[in-house]
Amino acid sequence: MIVKLNPQTREDELDKLTLTLKQMELDVTLLPHTKGITLELHGIVTDDKLELITRLPKVIKTEKIQSPYKKASKQLHPDPSVIEVGNIKIGGGHFAMIGGPCSIEDKDQLEKTAEYVKEAGGNMLRGGAFKPRTSPYSFQGLGKSGLDIMSSVGQKLDMPIVSEVMSIDQIELFKDVDMFQVGARNMQNFDLLKALGKTNKPILLKRGMSATIQEWLMSAEYIMSEGNENVILCERGIRTFETTTRNTQDLSAIAIVKELSHLPIVIDPSHAAGRRDIIESLSLAAIAAGADGLIIETHPDPDHAESDGAQSLYPEQFKQLTEKVWKLHAFMKRLEKNRADQEII
Amino acid sequence: MIVKLNPQTREDELDKLTLTLKQMELDVTLLPHTKGITLELHGIVTDDKLELITRLPKVIKTEKIQSPYKKASKQLHPDPSVIEVGNIKIGGGHFAMIGGPCSIEDKDQLEKTAEYVKEAGGNMLRGGAFKPRTSPYSFQGLGKSGLDIMSSVGQKLDMPIVSEVMSIDQIELFKDVDMFQVGARNMQNFDLLKALGKTNKPILLKRGMSATIQEWLMSAEYIMSEGNENVILCERGIRTFETTTRNTQDLSAIAIVKELSHLPIVIDPSHAAGRRDIIESLSLAAIAAGADGLIIETHPDPDHAESDGAQSLYPEQFKQLTEKVWKLHAFMKRLEKNRADQEII
Amino acid sequence: MIVKLNPQTREDELDKLTLTLKQMELDVTLLPHTKGITLELHGIVTDDKLELITRLPKVIKTEKIQSPYKKASKQLHPDPSVIEVGNIKIGGGHFAMIGGPCSIEDKDQLEKTAEYVKEAGGNMLRGGAFKPRTSPYSFQGLGKSGLDIMSSVGQKLDMPIVSEVMSIDQIELFKDVDMFQVGARNMQNFDLLKALGKTNKPILLKRGMSATIQEWLMSAEYIMSEGNENVILCERGIRTFETTTRNTQDLSAIAIVKELSHLPIVIDPSHAAGRRDIIESLSLAAIAAGADGLIIETHPDPDHAESDGAQSLYPEQFKQLTEKVWKLHAFMKRLEKNRADQEII
Amino acid sequence: MIVKLNPQTREDELDKLTLTLKQMELDVTLLPHTKGITLELHGIVTDDKLELITRLPKVIKTEKIQSPYKKASKQLHPDPSVIEVGNIKIGGGHFAMIGGPCSIEDKDQLEKTAEYVKEAGGNMLRGGAFKPRTSPYSFQGLGKSGLDIMSSVGQKLDMPIVSEVMSIDQIELFKDVDMFQVGARNMQNFDLLKALGKTNKPILLKRGMSATIQEWLMSAEYIMSEGNENVILCERGIRTFETTTRNTQDLSAIAIVKELSHLPIVIDPSHAAGRRDIIESLSLAAIAAGADGLIIETHPDPDHAESDGAQSLYPEQFKQLTEKVWKLHAFMKRLEKNRADQEII
Repeated sequence: MIVKLNPQTREDELDKLTLTLKQMELDVTLLPHTKGITLELHGIVTDDKLELITRLPKVIKTEKIQSPYKKASKQLHPDPSVIEVGNIKIGGGHFAMIGGPCSIEDKDQLEKTAEYVKEAGGNMLRGGAFKPRTSPYSFQGLGKSGLDIMSSVGQKLDMPIVSEVMSIDQIELFKDVDMFQVGARNMQNFDLLKALGKTNKPILLKRGMSATIQEWLMSAEYIMSEGNENVILCERGIRTFETTTRNTQDLSAIAIVKELSHLPIVIDPSHAAGRRDIIESLSLAAIAAGADGLIIETHPDPDHAESDGAQSLYPEQFKQLTEKVWKLHAFMKRLEKNRADQEII
Repeated sequence: MIVKLNPQTREDELDKLTLTLKQMELDVTLLPHTKGITLELHGIVTDDKLELITRLPKVIKTEKIQSPYKKASKQLHPDPSVIEVGNIKIGGGHFAMIGGPCSIEDKDQLEKTAEYVKEAGGNMLRGGAFKPRTSPYSFQGLGKSGLDIMSSVGQKLDMPIVSEVMSIDQIELFKDVDMFQVGARNMQNFDLLKALGKTNKPILLKRGMSATIQEWLMSAEYIMSEGNENVILCERGIRTFETTTRNTQDLSAIAIVKELSHLPIVIDPSHAAGRRDIIESLSLAAIAAGADGLIIETHPDPDHAESDGAQSLYPEQFKQLTEKVWKLHAFMKRLEKNRADQEII
Repeated sequence: MIVKLNPQTREDELDKLTLTLKQMELDVTLLPHTKGITLELHGIVTDDKLELITRLPKVIKTEKIQSPYKKASKQLHPDPSVIEVGNIKIGGGHFAMIGGPCSIEDKDQLEKTAEYVKEAGGNMLRGGAFKPRTSPYSFQGLGKSGLDIMSSVGQKLDMPIVSEVMSIDQIELFKDVDMFQVGARNMQNFDLLKALGKTNKPILLKRGMSATIQEWLMSAEYIMSEGNENVILCERGIRTFETTTRNTQDLSAIAIVKELSHLPIVIDPSHAAGRRDIIESLSLAAIAAGADGLIIETHPDPDHAESDGAQSLYPEQFKQLTEKVWKLHAFMKRLEKNRADQEII
Repeated sequence: MIVKLNPQTREDELDKLTLTLKQMELDVTLLPHTKGITLELHGIVTDDKLELITRLPKVIKTEKIQSPYKKASKQLHPDPSVIEVGNIKIGGGHFAMIGGPCSIEDKDQLEKTAEYVKEAGGNMLRGGAFKPRTSPYSFQGLGKSGLDIMSSVGQKLDMPIVSEVMSIDQIELFKDVDMFQVGARNMQNFDLLKALGKTNKPILLKRGMSATIQEWLMSAEYIMSEGNENVILCERGIRTFETTTRNTQDLSAIAIVKELSHLPIVIDPSHAAGRRDIIESLSLAAIAAGADGLIIETHPDPDHAESDGAQSLYPEQFKQLTEKVWKLHAFMKRLEKNRADQEII
């Protein structure tokens, strides 16, 4: 049960109200946010009690908690979440421009990449050490030593790092990694989600290849219900019949997620497209649609990359893209601000 | 066969070259464009002839025509097409902001809509007179009288109009309509496409619900191969497993189409989303991705619309959206221009 | 409104009841079937009238007509429809084994095919004269002369024939064809459906590539609402992400259609699979699932067919398949009969 | 590299040939099967060596190993695999009729179910102890104690049991379970697959909701490449746009899998359909298509089941279905045998 209060409610009135509710044998949690005050009630609310609550002073409206996800829902948390990952913030107007190779190959490759990513304006580094490959005979990543390379490069350049975790027993190896990535194939690996929910590190949760938005939010809920609310959603394309792109990027997910949830959403055009020539178009579209970040594959020498070369940007392309990204992001903020200023509703 | 010439080729050199090719019993068509000169050859090119052609003065390179669509392909027509629809242009930097109701209900409704669409900055009017409805028992549109209303409103406000044609025998009723629309359900109604190809009026060709981009371009080719090259493509969402939106808008189609074809592409977020709350996000994304126009459903009173009310924008929303659309479109042009100025490749 | 009567209702009781209902200003249609008597009422049924109707003698139950399709629904027509096509019947236990080439190429080819199809046990001939091809540059069929060949071959061998009609103006050319086929691409070509609804010839209505079962039944309704109730549904695969088959045959559609509708359903494994090596497996599966027929592509020389060679059976394969088809069909009837005999519920 | 030999090769000729190949520094593995003798070679095969091998006595043909999966491929293992699960066999003509509840609720429920499943003719028991639920707030299964109940019921009734394993640390809890099930959501949980590949227990590998058949076989390869070749594939429906069924059962997968692989394939119509009224139709279709088994949800009281009640068969339905299943399976064997006897090719 949710109780919305008059935004002008004074502290003493709030205390009195809370006391009354507790006397009705209800648990009360205060959910303050920018547009008012909301109380979350737990316990048995009979029709009689409901009648009473509705008439308490300062109560504007009562609502059932409707969505199957609770902690991920905007209902209980109307303001957008801002997640801190190392020295940067994501969400609520803070934008992440994450770049890096599909796989970490060696120190030299990662350092080179990190340098031009940072110089171009990227504020976070991606790279895979454990790789979920369709074939058991494909390159499976450097593993632990890949993570070591990554954390040393991240520290040297003062950039937070994100890498994919594939199983529970790998979690402890990620102590110097700033954000876990959960891959599309593991979006419903519920035991992994629960284990990550017991850590307090941010998690980039990729959407499963054929997951509905509701299932994706339910997977976020698996993490959050264990205590870790630092979840960032990542759209990486869904599987459809179209074959010119590897997957179909679902950019409508941005607005839908923002309707339903307070969690930030980052777009991965590299895995959606599977080809580098449309990355720029999708990236700029994502920003205009309201995304909170981009995660882009780039490699100093894509033609000789261990994996996913065809979708990795050349260094020069990454620089040009990043320049446009920041310009467009700044423009969209002004456009949004103008509207907010004019808004009457 | 395509022959690319040195951009510095002089007129007299070109004449001489053309003459030589004709003496080889080849048909020659000149395809001048902003980046050089290309010749299209038809006839039998033996290996010997090919050898000769390659060595003719000013010839840089020869290419087979590879794509299954010929007239829709960028190979023969590297510059973007600009299509004139009434008093506006679409493509090559010219943007269409098309607004109007799903169905024309009566003169008053359409006039009111056209007025606020125009005032807001819309430059074209949409409206359905013949409606393809899933059920034979649903409102099927006003038919001929709907078109009459539409053309009188269009003339009064000096706005070009677009409406859906559903069968060959309706074509003659559209004489005062500026652009035919071919609906998603008719994208592979090949007889209709051929008949429209024999007119010279612009055609807005919607993508079928489960059409690949290649099939869509092949349908454009059906029209173009009959002589009418004024085709504008329109992405209106594809069918996927996701249920929060009616269809999944495939915004990657914008960049893909521009890779493959010279035809303009317009985005229809109303039918893709099926809900008005994400239209703005999708519209702005489409512009950032490089779309040449938007077609948006709006109604003076969506709650009482005959059809598709849930996805129609309220007048006030349409105004706010259109303001942002033009601002973002102008910004994207500057962003693009800057890049073009810097471009080194 | 539907009124179900006691199956023991005598003729004179029925007459009396009908009279009473007519006095209530309701149109009454009698719908007798194997499991009882149902009346269909049209007119305004107020709550008072409803109350009265429920208490009339012999009335067991009243129901609203719920499905969006009326004539295609099983609600008003609980018994399966049996459609006559030339000298054969389809539905209600009658099975169609339709074979023939994708395209009619010449008289010799079609005659050869028809001969081995008939000899093998096929009871109907298919063949395309007007071909809906993705590309305007592909073979478009022989047209009118193809139909002429077909009707002469059909007459000679005394086999009913089915061929695809693509547009309204072709309808009159089909006067010697026993059944129209509406292709997947035209499933929502509503004007064509309405025109066919005004004929009295059976129609094989293919499911659209991405049509839901409900949309498919609504398209049947378009035909039926114009008066032609001789509709046979045909499942030919739906578009999915899987690439080993051209489409994914949806065999669950058989049981679903039989839950919702009285119309027969025929399966087309050739277009679903797009490869001949799995046709037998899908065909037998369709029969076990309860299909009323199969439509199979076969060609005397598939390796040199004008179209769809890869999915056409060799003559020998068609014979072997047909033999199994009839054996399995007979076995399924016995299995079904046994159950019906034992049935207690 | 694969080398096919004349089926009439004598033992001494084979020994000589093997010796020659080993002298060429190649590893040789003998792959005898019902249709002849095949050798698998590993090592560097230069063009010169290839030339030589082709001309060795008894060599009919040499082939590259083409499919990305090796151990799952039919190329190296042309005969169908027969997997033993407790006291039953699956594959190569041996059929599994697996029944049981979605979730194990208590001993009484499982015992009742097992009794009527066995009496009806089921030869294996299914039941979930660890449940992968979309929501963290749904019933998650009885866990370890569910497995204990299951193994005691299985022993009492002498039926092998299968249950889903969701993570590596659960593996040891399954010591009394006869077959692991890997759920659709975990089909690409590669670490789990590898860990299961190190056991020697049979594994029922469900197809992921949007997995292509190739990806599914690659997941089988992950298990097999670790040493455990006892893999049984299970089709449980794929995600499509259709909404009358929860998923779309892809029965073409049966024939395709048998073309590509020697592994048995079992069909799960319960999860594909999500509704009990079409289970019979799909089950019989699966058998006619050539499936090696069925896995069906049934519950003594589906209306009060903890999970998936709507798709669980009532006991009486399960009995009727099973009777038909065995009759049809026997009939299909006769049909197949007849063909084999007549086969000329």
